[in-house]
Amino acid sequence: MDQSDGRPDESLASMTRTARLTQWAAALSYDEIPSAVIEQTKLLFLDWLGCCVAGRSHASVQSMLHFAQTMGPKEGRSELVSFAGVTTSPYFAAMVNGASSHVVEQDDLHNSSMIHPATVVFPAALAVAQDVGCSGSDFLKACVIGYEFACRAGECLGKEHYKAFHSTATAGVLGAAAATTCLLKGTSPVYLSALGTAGTQAAGLWQFLLDATHSKQVHTARACSNGVYAAYVATCGLLGPTDIIEGEKGMIAMLSARNARPEFLDSKLGQKWAVMESSFKWHASCRHTHAAIDAFLALIEEFSIGWGDIEQVKAYTYDLAISIMSLSEKAETVHQSKFSMGFVLAVAAKHGQAMITDFTEQALEDTELRDFQRRVEMVLDAEIDSLFPEHWTSRIEVTTKTGSVFSKSVDAAKGDPQWSLTRDEIETKFRALVEYGGEKNMDFVDEIINKVRRLETEADIHGFAFV
Amino acid sequence: MDQSDGRPDESLASMTRTARLTQWAAALSYDEIPSAVIEQTKLLFLDWLGCCVAGRSHASVQSMLHFAQTMGPKEGRSELVSFAGVTTSPYFAAMVNGASSHVVEQDDLHNSSMIHPATVVFPAALAVAQDVGCSGSDFLKACVIGYEFACRAGECLGKEHYKAFHSTATAGVLGAAAATTCLLKGTSPVYLSALGTAGTQAAGLWQFLLDATHSKQVHTARACSNGVYAAYVATCGLLGPTDIIEGEKGMIAMLSARNARPEFLDSKLGQKWAVMESSFKWHASCRHTHAAIDAFLALIEEFSIGWGDIEQVKAYTYDLAISIMSLSEKAETVHQSKFSMGFVLAVAAKHGQAMITDFTEQALEDTELRDFQRRVEMVLDAEIDSLFPEHWTSRIEVTTKTGSVFSKSVDAAKGDPQWSLTRDEIETKFRALVEYGGEKNMDFVDEIINKVRRLETEADIHGFAFV
Repeated sequence: MDQSDGRPDESLASMTRTARLTQWAAALSYDEIPSAVIEQTKLLFLDWLGCCVAGRSHASVQSMLHFAQTMGPKEGRSELVSFAGVTTSPYFAAMVNGASSHVVEQDDLHNSSMIHPATVVFPAALAVAQDVGCSGSDFLKACVIGYEFACRAGECLGKEHYKAFHSTATAGVLGAAAATTCLLKGTSPVYLSALGTAGTQAAGLWQFLLDATHSKQVHTARACSNGVYAAYVATCGLLGPTDIIEGEKGMIAMLSARNARPEFLDSKLGQKWAVMESSFKWHASCRHTHAAIDAFLALIEEFSIGWGDIEQVKAYTYDLAISIMSLSEKAETVHQSKFSMGFVLAVAAKHGQAMITDFTEQALEDTELRDFQRRVEMVLDAEIDSLFPEHWTSRIEVTTKTGSVFSKSVDAAKGDPQWSLTRDEIETKFRALVEYGGEKNMDFVDEIINKVRRLETEADIHGFAFV
Repeated sequence: MDQSDGRPDESLASMTRTARLTQWAAALSYDEIPSAVIEQTKLLFLDWLGCCVAGRSHASVQSMLHFAQTMGPKEGRSELVSFAGVTTSPYFAAMVNGASSHVVEQDDLHNSSMIHPATVVFPAALAVAQDVGCSGSDFLKACVIGYEFACRAGECLGKEHYKAFHSTATAGVLGAAAATTCLLKGTSPVYLSALGTAGTQAAGLWQFLLDATHSKQVHTARACSNGVYAAYVATCGLLGPTDIIEGEKGMIAMLSARNARPEFLDSKLGQKWAVMESSFKWHASCRHTHAAIDAFLALIEEFSIGWGDIEQVKAYTYDLAISIMSLSEKAETVHQSKFSMGFVLAVAAKHGQAMITDFTEQALEDTELRDFQRRVEMVLDAEIDSLFPEHWTSRIEVTTKTGSVFSKSVDAAKGDPQWSLTRDEIETKFRALVEYGGEKNMDFVDEIINKVRRLETEADIHGFAFV
């Protein structure tokens, strides 16, 4: 075990799972990461950059930008991706970029952990990488490690935890801490301290869904900045509890993680890679609606059903989709409308898609959409529930006005690893996102796409800030 | 209801308890606060200043100081109480002062909420008050309000929550947010947003007690700085969930608060004051040991028992004392030794007191103390348990080497409101604390004592930083 205090190596058998994970991370070299993993990480990073620019005008982002400028330094080596010309310390860059990339609900999702890893890993890793002045390959390695920690923690904490906590935040802070520790070249004990300090701050409640307030961005922003904090203070001697996930008073025990799956923490290290399992979001709504959208669109195409022909839609789904989305079913704001199965399927029915430009203030006022929304029902399906979260499947049942009933199931949503986006689709989505965020300089957009393509060869990773 | 968006007043009856509390706070004027409350707040502030200086050399404080200087601005209007000459933004000042004042276990405790309010309210209030440049009376009002929110939240969340979470942090962040909102002159809806954003970040696990790591200071530091963050972003338009405490997906529901007591949130507003209910800590150990120390010292004095005469000590106590302190019973570090009933009573037996200078690295090596420690046992007492947390009582039973058995109970510990410290004792304790922290300039110490005595008349509240 890589220990700075000269204690003898512990045997693998006597180590905690968290210690085995940190030991693996501390010893990982860039060359051990398969090239397919690096290629996928670059695509995920590009996708994340687009989300970050798309979300920049949101009130949560603007208030955190102001906070960063009031409380932080006037300049620094870390960029705000959405605000070219503003630089700061990595702590505040991680915070603002973490908020901005989780506004438009287009950032990736890792199915079996139920978390959005990009929005909690890339903000911390980019900000710290820029501060320490590392290379593209060092940055990519830190991102790969951040994904492992965040996704494995999410898989470990599981479904019951997700019912109580927005686990992108609670697992995410561990990913941000790990990515930062990697960039600060921490030993295994430093990783453990950073995780301990990150995990004891893990937080994020779903209450905001009930009144459409802004905590979703607070959660990702703070997961990023708290992870940065945890790793920096760990490198300066602040000791964190060494078994924060599995310990008697730790996260599993105290954060409602009944039926936790700790075996996910250290299984198949170096054999399976979280970045390869993450889904790109094609539709611009809550990820729990995606398979339903795909099944619904396939069904109306296959049976040539016009949206005016539809009397009722039943979306058969798993328990957690109902638990989370029933909080937003009224769809009173644009953000809530992406969390309402009825509204989302109404949009899909009317437009044949559910893209970022389809969710607007005008759409909220559309009486046709509102009428359709009321005719959609979510129904718990025991088999679908048993497959979740490894599989986010859906079955759609449409009853037409003439009384015919049609049904269609999908096992994976567009963007899932089994049905992934092509590079062209990812770049098209990226262009749409930055355009949505107000970017006009398409030469710069091309430049960014090319720069990300060759990221592992870059000696420095500044220059990602959009005007 | 004081609302900035022009919506009509809601009736008191239809408001949530949290909304009633924020409405009361937003409308409170300094003149409505009884002078006894102001006098007590000043004493608590002086006591807090001493704790802050006493803790300044701890590794957690030093690492956060370094973090603040790396991530924050080079200067600002807020002072670090323990590091004269270093100024920063209120966010980082709240963080470092919040860590430093919770190191030596001498900061106050509010019995029925089970939280340490000073270390989460004063750091935020002082840092923000210095930043906005307000008067002593404005500062004191904000502190009074911070105490109300933190202590009422702690009372509301209750014992089961405290078993899972270090509630000084989870309730404390609400107090820090409220004190900051007061200084930023927030309306009632701004208070609600600030509380929502603070509450959704509420965190702090007891895992650190198991390996004597540094999360206790992380928790208070982050409660302070997260509270400052929540209030500042709320004033800039970031909306927080409006019913974060009682809501369906809020703190009571999700943070293990079975048997919560929400009626504490808004009962007797303006009639009872949390600052009047807080206990000064006389002994330098975990507050759960204090009544036991007092009963034990009274017993050995009354029956003239020498410490060498004692064969066994039984400390009858409540469930939570056993739950928390059993994690530290080995007393492997100075901090853990203050959380070990056996070690603490050994110190009291040997020295006739348990003061800050009695808990040292040398004491950990003292074989006499270690031998005595092993002869102390905590025993659950149903009646004592039923009185907790309103009363932190204890019964001590001593068996001598000759086989005699003596017993003594106390209903309140020295420093409790019913047995409070005199002004002289508080000032003596303050001098001891700053001396412990290395302060040599006793003229400056006198100056601080005098300045705090007349704090409500001060036009500005800078000048509290110790060299």
